Amino acid sequence: ALLWGIEKALTPQDLAGRRVLVTAGPTQEAMDPVRFLSNHSTGKMGYAVAARAALRGAETTLVSGPTALDTPAGVQRVDVVSACEMYDAVVSRAAEQDMIVKAAAVGDYRPAETAAEKLKKGEGELTLALARNPDILAELGRKKRPGQLLCGFAMETQSLLENAAEKLRRKNCDMLVANSLRDAGAGFGTDTNVATLLFADGRRETPPLMSKEALADVILDRLLAMRQARA
Amino acid sequence: ALLWGIEKALTPQDLAGRRVLVTAGPTQEAMDPVRFLSNHSTGKMGYAVAARAALRGAETTLVSGPTALDTPAGVQRVDVVSACEMYDAVVSRAAEQDMIVKAAAVGDYRPAETAAEKLKKGEGELTLALARNPDILAELGRKKRPGQLLCGFAMETQSLLENAAEKLRRKNCDMLVANSLRDAGAGFGTDTNVATLLFADGRRETPPLMSKEALADVILDRLLAMRQARA
Repeated sequence: ALLWGIEKALTPQDLAGRRVLVTAGPTQEAMDPVRFLSNHSTGKMGYAVAARAALRGAETTLVSGPTALDTPAGVQRVDVVSACEMYDAVVSRAAEQDMIVKAAAVGDYRPAETAAEKLKKGEGELTLALARNPDILAELGRKKRPGQLLCGFAMETQSLLENAAEKLRRKNCDMLVANSLRDAGAGFGTDTNVATLLFADGRRETPPLMSKEALADVILDRLLAMRQARA
Repeated sequence: ALLWGIEKALTPQDLAGRRVLVTAGPTQEAMDPVRFLSNHSTGKMGYAVAARAALRGAETTLVSGPTALDTPAGVQRVDVVSACEMYDAVVSRAAEQDMIVKAAAVGDYRPAETAAEKLKKGEGELTLALARNPDILAELGRKKRPGQLLCGFAMETQSLLENAAEKLRRKNCDMLVANSLRDAGAGFGTDTNVATLLFADGRRETPPLMSKEALADVILDRLLAMRQARA
């Protein structure tokens, strides 16, 4: 805490007075008390954004799915497990935020029913009915108030930039961070990231391979610049 | 390594010359490069058995699904992801083992097809076809050679002991460790465990609540006693 205070004192407080909400990690969608559907997100990118936002002076809330990571200093962390829990935690806190960075890899589907007791296995095949989870980013885009900035993430293995541009528009984002799982140095569990930033005005920017902390600063820089350009 | 050498020198080497194989952790069953089916196992119980076996002098192999745990000193670790990979890693090493402790929570089902690219989500419901995974414990029971000892685990939320006794018989185990997810101090992620040990001759034993390390020693004690009674 002392070291963090010193590091903060040495960091320009260019986000002081801003409220930033970040989501991170995977969600887990329960089939029963034992089994679940999930994904390979480790939460590192979102945690890096939250850590940097707090160091730069923002009042920072991190809504996190299950991860093995420590809470960054200065960050208010809210733990959730499922996509429905994340939806409630995020949407209920959205109105008061200046910037929302939705880095979590939220499960698109959940088992249509969750069994209260462990399911007994049978012989042969089984079909699992999956229901669509609520779309958090779309809801944030619909409810975005004037001046609020919304940054989404897209992770694809193919047709990344076309899908990302379409997602940016459809979800009413101001900025979208597009990650390819196929790029060396990018993706789940790595400490570095390669991403293309897409902006609502059509601009695109591809920073070089850098640490997730450095990329977090670039993301926050771009959001802050948009905020200042509008003010 | 020095401290471990000292601890080992102070530990009776009652498993010297024995080969022990332990499985631990969950498996992950891929839907696509991003999504998977898994379970809440952290691997702590199996890692404790492997650690204690190595300290007691056994030549110890640990076949582990994805966990956040460090490899115990003196243990040969083999990493796998899916149930099919675990099946191959275990069955190919089974013949030379004196004791096999199958503590892993192996996924019973996998997606019938794994997509090479990330699946695009659609609107509304989806059904996921699941295929049964090979039954590792049953295969080990079928191939068990004279003198080899096989210990399985059962984790249930209801009818635990009836299901465990039936599993012990059906899978040709010598011993089965039955855990209830409903007991305080037992189950996923805890450092303690409450379990009932069931034996092929019908005996049952319920040690008091204890650390997973202490329960690991009890499990190894009982296997060693069976081995010595038969010799």
